[in-house]
Amino acid sequence: MAALQSIKQNCKKVMCIGRNYADHVKELNNQRPKQPFFFLKPPSSILLPDEGPVLRPAGVNMHFEVELGLVIGKQVKDIKAEKDEDALQYIDSYLLTIDMTGRNVQEEAKKRGLPWSIAKGYDTFCPIAGPIAKSKITDMHNVEIYLKVNGETKQEDNTELMLFRIPRQLSDISQVMTLEPGDVVLTGTPKGVGPVTSGDVMEAGMRINGKEVEEAHIKVE
Amino acid sequence: MAALQSIKQNCKKVMCIGRNYADHVKELNNQRPKQPFFFLKPPSSILLPDEGPVLRPAGVNMHFEVELGLVIGKQVKDIKAEKDEDALQYIDSYLLTIDMTGRNVQEEAKKRGLPWSIAKGYDTFCPIAGPIAKSKITDMHNVEIYLKVNGETKQEDNTELMLFRIPRQLSDISQVMTLEPGDVVLTGTPKGVGPVTSGDVMEAGMRINGKEVEEAHIKVE
Ligand SMILES: [Mg+2]
Ligand SMILES: [Mg+2]
Ligand SMILES: [Mg+2]
Repeated sequence: MAALQSIKQNCKKVMCIGRNYADHVKELNNQRPKQPFFFLKPPSSILLPDEGPVLRPAGVNMHFEVELGLVIGKQVKDIKAEKDEDALQYIDSYLLTIDMTGRNVQEEAKKRGLPWSIAKGYDTFCPIAGPIAKSKITDMHNVEIYLKVNGETKQEDNTELMLFRIPRQLSDISQVMTLEPGDVVLTGTPKGVGPVTSGDVMEAGMRINGKEVEEAHIKVE
Repeated sequence: MAALQSIKQNCKKVMCIGRNYADHVKELNNQRPKQPFFFLKPPSSILLPDEGPVLRPAGVNMHFEVELGLVIGKQVKDIKAEKDEDALQYIDSYLLTIDMTGRNVQEEAKKRGLPWSIAKGYDTFCPIAGPIAKSKITDMHNVEIYLKVNGETKQEDNTELMLFRIPRQLSDISQVMTLEPGDVVLTGTPKGVGPVTSGDVMEAGMRINGKEVEEAHIKVE
């Protein structure tokens, strides 16, 4: 398991699934996807715990999306994973992540059929915490993730609600792109996303069977 | 100037501009952009000269787009570059690149407001050649790039036709994302893009004042 610092250094892509929790799909008035779809964030968007605040670019309506993250441990292509055990062998460790999104930039891109890379890719738009050892998460589809803004809970749901589970995500991504050690996968956000602005304090965490996971804690302005 | 092998190893993002030559905008029935827009390809899509053919994923209508590539030499943010000299200091060397695109996948994404990352990101979808020393290209906006399919010229135009020039591209990208040494920038494709299928031979090259640049040669199935 690599230290957080070297996870940022070694990361060559951050692959993210969109619309992977039913209630989040509804809240953004999106259609429920028949197939999973994915987008890239650049490694330069990763924000480590000691690197300061999330920076809001001028004119950007910045939304938080708390997500369970995976760090890939092996170079692999064309994974045929069906069970959690099949996926586990490609996972080095877990992260807690926030997929920060320029919502107005994304809405404009969606309307005009343009790429999402800017909306998702600003510097500091991917705060991470961890790593969380594989052994700590006995069931990757039974992890509670939450996010509070200024002390108020905004997101709080269990990864059991994912529409497309992790083995399917890794299979689909790796049919398209070789996964490499250090790559990061963001597994989707539950309902409750919303705006934050400069000065707001976001606090995100993870619970397993009701217990806080100490190393999975993000507190960021 | 790094060897081609280490360019692939060190690359953390491939940032590409869309619709940057007027006649290419027309041929795809797109609108001419008022602002440049960008998208990411993953480093895993880079194909080195000795790594075999471009692989066509099942059901994908694969298009070539020959482009002048830049290798970034410095970590930098918020570049204010107006003249070519301003941009030059951030460039380590040049590449010849092909931005392979799953055109039907991209059209579907555009129609549905979804990300371009898959359409642009398959393994082998970014053949590169070079590096070309900075000293060889006395004017980055006077370079002829061309691409032939099975011996027939399909693309052949000069970088002087770019709508948004390289200083503007680097400025705009670096307002959003820190550029890091080894990052690659694709500067747009001229008119003439089209489909290739398995077995077709693509040959791409670069000329300066009518002279072939030896190291800027891609021949790939
Ligand atoms: Mg997300
Ligand atoms: Mg995209
Ligand atoms: Mg292109």
